[in-house]
Amino acid sequence: AHIVTLPGDGVGPEVTAATVAVLEAVAEHYDHGFRFSHHPIGGCAIDATGEPLPAATLDACRQADAVLLGAVGGPRWSDPEAKVRPEQGLLALRAALGVYANLRPLTVHPALAALSPLKNERLHEVDVVFVRELTGGAYFGAKTRSDETATDECRYTVAEVERVARRAFELARARRHHLTSVDKANVLETSRLWRSTVTRLSAEYPDVRLEHQLVDSMAMLLLTQPQRYDVVVTENLFGDILTDEAAALAGSLGLLPSASLGEGGRGLYEPIHGSAPDIAGQGVANPLGAILSAALLLRHSLGLDAEARAVESAVAQVLEHGPRSRDLGGQAGTAAVLDAVLVALA
Amino acid sequence: AHIVTLPGDGVGPEVTAATVAVLEAVAEHYDHGFRFSHHPIGGCAIDATGEPLPAATLDACRQADAVLLGAVGGPRWSDPEAKVRPEQGLLALRAALGVYANLRPLTVHPALAALSPLKNERLHEVDVVFVRELTGGAYFGAKTRSDETATDECRYTVAEVERVARRAFELARARRHHLTSVDKANVLETSRLWRSTVTRLSAEYPDVRLEHQLVDSMAMLLLTQPQRYDVVVTENLFGDILTDEAAALAGSLGLLPSASLGEGGRGLYEPIHGSAPDIAGQGVANPLGAILSAALLLRHSLGLDAEARAVESAVAQVLEHGPRSRDLGGQAGTAAVLDAVLVALA
Ligand SMILES: CC(C)[C@H](C(=O)O)[C@@H](O)C(=O)O
Ligand SMILES: CC(C)[C@H](C(=O)O)[C@@H](O)C(=O)O
Repeated sequence: AHIVTLPGDGVGPEVTAATVAVLEAVAEHYDHGFRFSHHPIGGCAIDATGEPLPAATLDACRQADAVLLGAVGGPRWSDPEAKVRPEQGLLALRAALGVYANLRPLTVHPALAALSPLKNERLHEVDVVFVRELTGGAYFGAKTRSDETATDECRYTVAEVERVARRAFELARARRHHLTSVDKANVLETSRLWRSTVTRLSAEYPDVRLEHQLVDSMAMLLLTQPQRYDVVVTENLFGDILTDEAAALAGSLGLLPSASLGEGGRGLYEPIHGSAPDIAGQGVANPLGAILSAALLLRHSLGLDAEARAVESAVAQVLEHGPRSRDLGGQAGTAAVLDAVLVALA
Repeated sequence: AHIVTLPGDGVGPEVTAATVAVLEAVAEHYDHGFRFSHHPIGGCAIDATGEPLPAATLDACRQADAVLLGAVGGPRWSDPEAKVRPEQGLLALRAALGVYANLRPLTVHPALAALSPLKNERLHEVDVVFVRELTGGAYFGAKTRSDETATDECRYTVAEVERVARRAFELARARRHHLTSVDKANVLETSRLWRSTVTRLSAEYPDVRLEHQLVDSMAMLLLTQPQRYDVVVTENLFGDILTDEAAALAGSLGLLPSASLGEGGRGLYEPIHGSAPDIAGQGVANPLGAILSAALLLRHSLGLDAEARAVESAVAQVLEHGPRSRDLGGQAGTAAVLDAVLVALA
């Protein structure tokens, strides 16, 4: 299998290198041949080529079996009015790869419940997968700007809603048979299209209990009753906000993985944390979010479920017995955490 | 002073009646003449007139010194595809009154910290005012809908951003001199306009420390560091989501007031809770959110600051010594809570 890595900016290269080491260990153990190639994206790509997503990077991604991304962005490129910005590379990549379904699983390891800002005593029972639509909505709609006015258009087609909702229904069917669809149907026309499409589709999934929530209510319910949710599907911008809110429950962003999937097996995998410029280059970033993203890569793009589970249980062991990186209240650097994962894997 | 009340639907009439009783007590104590008139809005207005905001209701609001609203909506009118919906009444009223700045103060009374889902030990130090833009953005932009596609346009002008940001800067100046502006400037054009306008305006407020946050980060920071914030200004939809998330921190929505202000003194005051159809008509709704909204009305529309503080301290006494409504872990009904407020006021 050919895996393209896009280390990106900030802590991206550090966590990506650690993750490649884990994938190499998996390849050795299970006798797979993984081929890696590394390409620039984001700020480092702007510095090198003037573009946040160089054509060579995109070509490589298109030919790969899976893409592993670190993070993009940082203070050097942070002027939102700049013509060329790191995030454009990521957005263009998502669109070009057609990875319309962004899966963000959220569980709270019992050993980490103390790190959560919530006092909820059953946090270890939280087990949600967010399915965020990733290639539509206001992120990709027409934009205008004049001296006096700016506009962003949020646009959804029935087909766009259907394909992401279908994936969410299938996922719910394979889990606890509960799907929560989040919209703002009391105000937005796109949300009314969203809701009616999801409702219509639910006839095909009589075994899945469908619930609709307004995005403002959902922002509350995630705090008061996080255990209630199984699969949560929503549009791009609502998903951006709600998944970050939900991530805060977990105590640290450093742990959380994501998989962005399109048709066929190709996927884009990235930890949900950002480039964390404040700690970049110091060898202290938590590599576990990236490593767990690689587990999703093994499962969803390479069909290697046993290998994925091996990585996940190695990470669980490290969470239980340490060492822990700073974001988890420990002192360990990236290398020490990586070593512990490799030992647990062996 | 002439106060129009719009009791609306669900628990709206119950909490509004309690609030009028408090305002009547204030009028008697302080020897003011308050005149009240009641008008339909939302679902009950649809039932009575076919329209969620009858012309007579709007006329009365336009002539009033202040408007006190209960809540709108309920299961009877909840089909988002219906031509006429209760929320349209509220949105049309906000637009017609030009109340572009929605103020949502959030504090956590020490006696209620235990109700919060957060384990934060300094919750009583949380003291934030959200300033949500209320008459622009995707709520009021052009919408289209066909069988296949729907669109919502988010639009902001510099003038719209300026007026709400100016109010937020002024408020920050009167408080702890810290303003956080929330946007999604790494993706949205309206957010870039928002950010550059707020930044430009900050030159006029050198005594206010301005900070920008992305909406996804802010959704996390509200959970991890709620004490950090003083005044938070944001656009309509982000404000809808973030204020509900923040409200969940307070342990109950039942307590939280809001004031929607335009130019001049006219304002629209409403508790942030909804119509709560599940408990409507049972006499158990918490009237304190509506009563605290009346305190804001006294302060912002009638210029009666001492009276406002008297109401707020009466509510604080009730929170300390009870009785408490169900949402606050007690057993008291609306009438018992109201009586306690009236006693504390006397
Ligand atoms: C970097 C940014 C454009 C991106 C997004 O908003 O999608 C990020 O916040 C994310 O959630 O992956
Ligand atoms: C009822 C609804 C239209 C409204 C809104 O979204 O503004 C409500 O959620 C609010 O926050 O006042």
